[in-house]
Amino acid sequence: MTEVAIIGASMTRFGEREAWVNELLAEAGDACLDDAGVAPADVEHLYVSNMASGEFEGTTGVPNALAHDLGAVPAYTQRVDQTSSSGGAGVYAAWQSVASGASEMTLLVGGEKMTHRTTGEATDVIASLTHPVEYKHGVTLPSFAGLTARTYLNEYDAPRESLAEVAVKNHRNGVDNPHAQFRREIDTETALNSPLVADPLRLYDFCPITDGSAALLFCPVEVAREHADSFVTVSGVAGATDTHVVHERTDPTTMRGVVESGREAFDRAGLSPDDVDVAELHDMFTILEFLQYEGLGFADPGTAWQDAMDGVTARDGALPVNTSGGLKSKGHPLGASGVAQVFEIYRQLLGDAGERQVDADVGLACNVGGFGNCVTTAIMEVR
Amino acid sequence: MTEVAIIGASMTRFGEREAWVNELLAEAGDACLDDAGVAPADVEHLYVSNMASGEFEGTTGVPNALAHDLGAVPAYTQRVDQTSSSGGAGVYAAWQSVASGASEMTLLVGGEKMTHRTTGEATDVIASLTHPVEYKHGVTLPSFAGLTARTYLNEYDAPRESLAEVAVKNHRNGVDNPHAQFRREIDTETALNSPLVADPLRLYDFCPITDGSAALLFCPVEVAREHADSFVTVSGVAGATDTHVVHERTDPTTMRGVVESGREAFDRAGLSPDDVDVAELHDMFTILEFLQYEGLGFADPGTAWQDAMDGVTARDGALPVNTSGGLKSKGHPLGASGVAQVFEIYRQLLGDAGERQVDADVGLACNVGGFGNCVTTAIMEVR
Repeated sequence: MTEVAIIGASMTRFGEREAWVNELLAEAGDACLDDAGVAPADVEHLYVSNMASGEFEGTTGVPNALAHDLGAVPAYTQRVDQTSSSGGAGVYAAWQSVASGASEMTLLVGGEKMTHRTTGEATDVIASLTHPVEYKHGVTLPSFAGLTARTYLNEYDAPRESLAEVAVKNHRNGVDNPHAQFRREIDTETALNSPLVADPLRLYDFCPITDGSAALLFCPVEVAREHADSFVTVSGVAGATDTHVVHERTDPTTMRGVVESGREAFDRAGLSPDDVDVAELHDMFTILEFLQYEGLGFADPGTAWQDAMDGVTARDGALPVNTSGGLKSKGHPLGASGVAQVFEIYRQLLGDAGERQVDADVGLACNVGGFGNCVTTAIMEVR
Repeated sequence: MTEVAIIGASMTRFGEREAWVNELLAEAGDACLDDAGVAPADVEHLYVSNMASGEFEGTTGVPNALAHDLGAVPAYTQRVDQTSSSGGAGVYAAWQSVASGASEMTLLVGGEKMTHRTTGEATDVIASLTHPVEYKHGVTLPSFAGLTARTYLNEYDAPRESLAEVAVKNHRNGVDNPHAQFRREIDTETALNSPLVADPLRLYDFCPITDGSAALLFCPVEVAREHADSFVTVSGVAGATDTHVVHERTDPTTMRGVVESGREAFDRAGLSPDDVDVAELHDMFTILEFLQYEGLGFADPGTAWQDAMDGVTARDGALPVNTSGGLKSKGHPLGASGVAQVFEIYRQLLGDAGERQVDADVGLACNVGGFGNCVTTAIMEVR
């Protein structure tokens, strides 16, 4: 199997953008190729992680439009959709394209344009990923999050404040991320007193609706050596599903997709959770940061809240989580998020994370689709 | 690189179906696993080729629903979208998953549910894959086909009847395909006198709107040997794009995506066009069969029409094309079509094509997205 490297990364400003999805994708794609010093004509495979350009904007075929806009024709193109984990699925697809020998230069661009739609419209598009029975009964992802948060707090006797600490931490990190949608600190009181959304979760437990794009450039390690003195390798990546009907899960606070994808990614990398120095977890809802932190083996079940309260996951803690600001403050343009997670790890591992820099040789990104319906986990190392 | 085999295949009846997309996908997926004698729990990766379940039915996340319905959780899932060539892109993705070592058992299911929408609505969803500038001016794929057919006939002094012969041949083949949407012969006069759609193309130059699904099961050759005495290998597969703005192409009768993907697929297989015994080409419009036949190197530019008139591509000809009936008579459920092409080649190579059987050791499938905006070509051999 060919060893896979990342030699370039970029992301656009996340937030409310005037540009539509094709423009956002081209902005990130161009910047990524510039970052790596690679010409568009050298791209062999081009993957676009995007959930719903057809539903949001009435445009499809965006990978072909992007190949055209970048000047990458006749590169092979494909759209990767795995709902809210389309970005992570794109990382896996790009890895497979290089590891299989199909491509020696693969550009992955993830992006979504959402803010031109109302929150209700956007939520309805996202809710279409749930099981049809759940969808028809009006279940949305925020409602699952509320039910799960209540179960977690009850089961593990965890304080409500621990969830607020996730939001406070990630907002603090976002202040130092020039790409983030929200660059302002919040305090625990603000989070705890924000409007109720899905009891016990409140406004600040949720990520926003966001426009944005991010990109990564993959190639074999031997090709990477020609381009850069130091680069990042994807030493393990894997994905897994959980039941599509959420209520069929035996333990609502264990995300099987997280557990299985994490176990396989660590196996492939020959590493363990103890080896990870920095992690980007999919905090679409604050409770999800706990469930991934535990599911990946960073803490025993029911104890993630304690690490959050103790500052273990803060930027100066033993295992910084979401130094980028996470989905919570950076924003969550569906198809971009999993790519942007790896962008943050890439920058951290290369020592290019500016004010957000932590000391890290091994990083992990976990991208969650739906309510854990499908999950990808990727482990990166610096060379 | 791991050598990749196909050990199971299935397709549903194509046509107007009461079932919705999730049910169609499960029908094909179940049948494919049965065909191979593999348990759902042994599936490691599950890819779904589908262009527009969100636009057609308001449902997304169909790969997760399918993993659930098949009993394949926690298999990794992903949707592969490459517009009308989503099926071929799925074949390429499945190949990469096995060749890279990421998966030892990959199920690919392609499907689309379209007939519950009006032809105008379906055409509008499909037209959203064209370049936004073309889309906003009302250009649809049939109008491109008309313009290109006129150019071809003029440039190569080809008779209008040669296009009708494609429709007549493919309808004849479809009679013997129990999965085909149309199982009736037509004659040249009927084709030539059918209603005008996009001059010079008439109704019988176009494939129908179709519901249906098809599936393939991929694994390493060494695993295939444990399952079957004879099986099929994917000895070369590749994909390529052309300009997304169709009018920017210097030669409208040459499809660069076909040429480039064909060349690379033959290179990978170590074969040439002369080695191919049977081919499934993407006859969404009759003219496309000529353009692919030439672009893949089966004939010199401007001569495919002659081979069609001479019966070279008939079932008893030197190179049978579209023994399945092609998209023309079998139908074209977007995400299913590229998968169903490989289903036909698989059956032909194993000698299981019933009334449609031809003598073949090497087969090729070419799946075209948009108006050649992205193309995949796969070459299969029997072992």
